[in-house]
Amino acid sequence: MCILGIDPGTASTGYGIIEENQSGIKAIKYGVISTAANLPMGERIIAIYDRMIEIIEEFSPVSCAVEKLFFRRNVTTAISVGQARGVVLLALAQKGVAIAEYTPMQVKLAVAGYGGAEKKQVQFMVQSILNLVDIPKPDDAADALAIAITHAHSKKIMDLYE
Amino acid sequence: MCILGIDPGTASTGYGIIEENQSGIKAIKYGVISTAANLPMGERIIAIYDRMIEIIEEFSPVSCAVEKLFFRRNVTTAISVGQARGVVLLALAQKGVAIAEYTPMQVKLAVAGYGGAEKKQVQFMVQSILNLVDIPKPDDAADALAIAITHAHSKKIMDLYE
Repeated sequence: MCILGIDPGTASTGYGIIEENQSGIKAIKYGVISTAANLPMGERIIAIYDRMIEIIEEFSPVSCAVEKLFFRRNVTTAISVGQARGVVLLALAQKGVAIAEYTPMQVKLAVAGYGGAEKKQVQFMVQSILNLVDIPKPDDAADALAIAITHAHSKKIMDLYE
Repeated sequence: MCILGIDPGTASTGYGIIEENQSGIKAIKYGVISTAANLPMGERIIAIYDRMIEIIEEFSPVSCAVEKLFFRRNVTTAISVGQARGVVLLALAQKGVAIAEYTPMQVKLAVAGYGGAEKKQVQFMVQSILNLVDIPKPDDAADALAIAITHAHSKKIMDLYE
């Protein structure tokens, strides 16, 4: 059963697909959906949506975790992130994929063990948990994998209470 | 030839369709796409997208003007507005509707004559320009009509230079 993690952004939307089995969690695929800044916004939005649909159809994830909010960034960035987030949520909802949301602090806590972890520490833990040769590149793909791992961990914790 | 104006928001997306002829500008239809706060975000996003597609298919606008940025609002609101804006832009781009963007100040300038106009003054001018019996309700619908009027005016000005 695949879990998809998404770190949305108009210029670059990171995605990471992981799978859990008895021996742990492995990375199936990760990367970024990049859109060129010189394209009209409508075309950039369509590119993100179309690629999201492709990814969902190829890997049939049971659930998807999306980064929740970027409190520290400015309003212009927030609008841009929100627009990408909107079409990501639309693609997921249209395809019936369950959506979970985690804040950056929840991700740091789940992956690196404490909420104030540095970006590099989180990336190193992602590499370690997924048993990868290198830290996943680019950063948005590593962030997306971290969100997917967060969801896998929190699902386990929730299962204990069921 | 219809012009569509959109004031995007997750809880309420205002829309206004206007048509220009020799005698001036008239309102064809206006209203809001409302989504309940207790619904999952995915369902709210789908509702906005589906209604946008319906509106575009019903009125076949040649172009659409969308409010650009809300500098004064906070980051959480910006993410929420951005999400709605993302699916609005997606629907427009998928249907091949030309997209124009205007800031709140440009709208005030075009509709009420100066960039520092009060909301009520803009609404009164919308009523007056469109020759309506009352101020259009709710506010988001009036805002959407104001954006559509802004686009009609700026198109005229651009035409003078062509």
